[in-house]
Amino acid sequence: MDHDGRITIKDIAKETNLSIATVSRVLANTGEHNGETVKKVQNAAIKMGYIKNTSAVELVQRTSHVIAVIVSNTKSNFSDSIISAIEDQAVQNNLDVFILHAGHADEVSQERAIKTVSERAVKGIILVSLELNDHILQLLKEAGISCVCLSTSVKNSVFPFVTSDNFKMGYAATDFLIKKGHKKIGIAGIPADGSISQRIAGYSQCMQDHNLQIKKAWIQYGDCTYDDGVQAMKNYREQEPITAVICASDFVGVGLMNTATKMGIKVPVQLNIISFDGTNLVDIVRPRITSVTQQFYAMGTEGIDFILKKRSFTSKYLPFKIVERESTSSIN
Amino acid sequence: MDHDGRITIKDIAKETNLSIATVSRVLANTGEHNGETVKKVQNAAIKMGYIKNTSAVELVQRTSHVIAVIVSNTKSNFSDSIISAIEDQAVQNNLDVFILHAGHADEVSQERAIKTVSERAVKGIILVSLELNDHILQLLKEAGISCVCLSTSVKNSVFPFVTSDNFKMGYAATDFLIKKGHKKIGIAGIPADGSISQRIAGYSQCMQDHNLQIKKAWIQYGDCTYDDGVQAMKNYREQEPITAVICASDFVGVGLMNTATKMGIKVPVQLNIISFDGTNLVDIVRPRITSVTQQFYAMGTEGIDFILKKRSFTSKYLPFKIVERESTSSIN
Repeated sequence: MDHDGRITIKDIAKETNLSIATVSRVLANTGEHNGETVKKVQNAAIKMGYIKNTSAVELVQRTSHVIAVIVSNTKSNFSDSIISAIEDQAVQNNLDVFILHAGHADEVSQERAIKTVSERAVKGIILVSLELNDHILQLLKEAGISCVCLSTSVKNSVFPFVTSDNFKMGYAATDFLIKKGHKKIGIAGIPADGSISQRIAGYSQCMQDHNLQIKKAWIQYGDCTYDDGVQAMKNYREQEPITAVICASDFVGVGLMNTATKMGIKVPVQLNIISFDGTNLVDIVRPRITSVTQQFYAMGTEGIDFILKKRSFTSKYLPFKIVERESTSSIN
Repeated sequence: MDHDGRITIKDIAKETNLSIATVSRVLANTGEHNGETVKKVQNAAIKMGYIKNTSAVELVQRTSHVIAVIVSNTKSNFSDSIISAIEDQAVQNNLDVFILHAGHADEVSQERAIKTVSERAVKGIILVSLELNDHILQLLKEAGISCVCLSTSVKNSVFPFVTSDNFKMGYAATDFLIKKGHKKIGIAGIPADGSISQRIAGYSQCMQDHNLQIKKAWIQYGDCTYDDGVQAMKNYREQEPITAVICASDFVGVGLMNTATKMGIKVPVQLNIISFDGTNLVDIVRPRITSVTQQFYAMGTEGIDFILKKRSFTSKYLPFKIVERESTSSIN
């Protein structure tokens, strides 16, 4: 036994008077051995409580039952829905799900996570909400494992992806507010780079299509956090008042709304708020926040279907919808 | 190559004119081979892009760098802090973390998760917020892997655990409200069984110590969800009005508060609310909720320290504290 009290191949070798290499090969089902040797090793393994070496068998047979999900460790709450869908489907297909966290656009932690899973036997890798650079994409390609990206698009479509069209969502949120009579519309908490920055492009295009000028201070960059919402609201008040704001995430929306309320600005009477995502958070705060609701659960289902090759698959944008709640109202 | 386009041991054997068994042994570093054979296999493996078979090496050497975290899939938000702590420590110790979900008190899914990790090479298993029955405890014992339970206690201390003392937390929350002048105090959303049911025992003891009677309707059972808070509030209003309520989780607290507000009951003027956990949720709702705040991040750190055997270890209850916010006030 090793220092943890676990039975090792060495213990079985000692018990059976066989070499470690032979025991290893018998248990991993490689090489050829006579039936008596196989039986001897197997009996000892069972008797001694040696845990079946699933990884090794899987590595030889390439039939892993594990789906690896690498998910952004950015504090977002929508990934819960994506993971729920993956797990629901996994159980139905007798697969196991391992979840690993990695930084949103953090090459070191992404590389580490990818190496961790690709050096083991996995049936496929589902990447959730990660911005991948060329080096990481190359690493994934070299791993030769089925890969799909959810909630982000992929440059040059090296891998299939399932997400919502960020440009269209930005455009739709802006159009929704303009139709309510707003002209001074801000956008808050969105990073300047990466696929979700396209929401700003959609916002800009919609403003332009309605002949509305955008002031520089109306665009408040951030990283989708609650604190970004707090900071954006402070900046709006100091720099350039707006009557409506599009928030990068539900967290940004709540942070911005709480800060506005603290300043004595009434939502929605004096300020309209709409947030991207539409997770359960927008329903449990008061007032409830109007959202551009994405189909996160469906993204998870699509992702695992791709790994299982259930049907022909191309990258796609899933439909989104605007769900109106209490944080928006028409300007009279 | 297999159908996924991955290079296998078979491909390397073909390339090098060696047997599959030899290639397997060389790559797994078992058996003895002359330097030329080793070099031949290694060169081919590198040239062909064969991914190093870490699992097999780990299984032979019993030196896995993976910590498996099996976490309740009950919708709770405190496990995020525990997992963050584990991941922060893991990076510093050059370890990888795999997360798996299992039901809170669901034997089938727990057994599945434990088998999945124990059949592979893992350095240790950290169980978060799972209620384990005797069968599951036996299974874990048989796996012979280092195990620690966080956020639940373990019957007969078969494994070490780190959690908060549920009886004491229940007592302290009740005492806090009694000191504010409350006599009609409810407790909502707590399961009748399992370690957190001890919060009800602590509540009962404190009420008794203050010579206060408990009406049956004041105890509203549940499963720590937002909807349990909604339902409990409806039941209180119909059955037995209270002036203060202790909530099983932050989610229960928010659900109960929103429902009270909808009924026209003002928090804290007409109803005091205190919730267990004290996650970021209690700070982002309005009014902010007073909480019995647990040290979740510290639980994660203690858990991984145990796996790394950094110091002598016994099961322990971490201190908690009551953080007063806007949902409680004294009765004049």
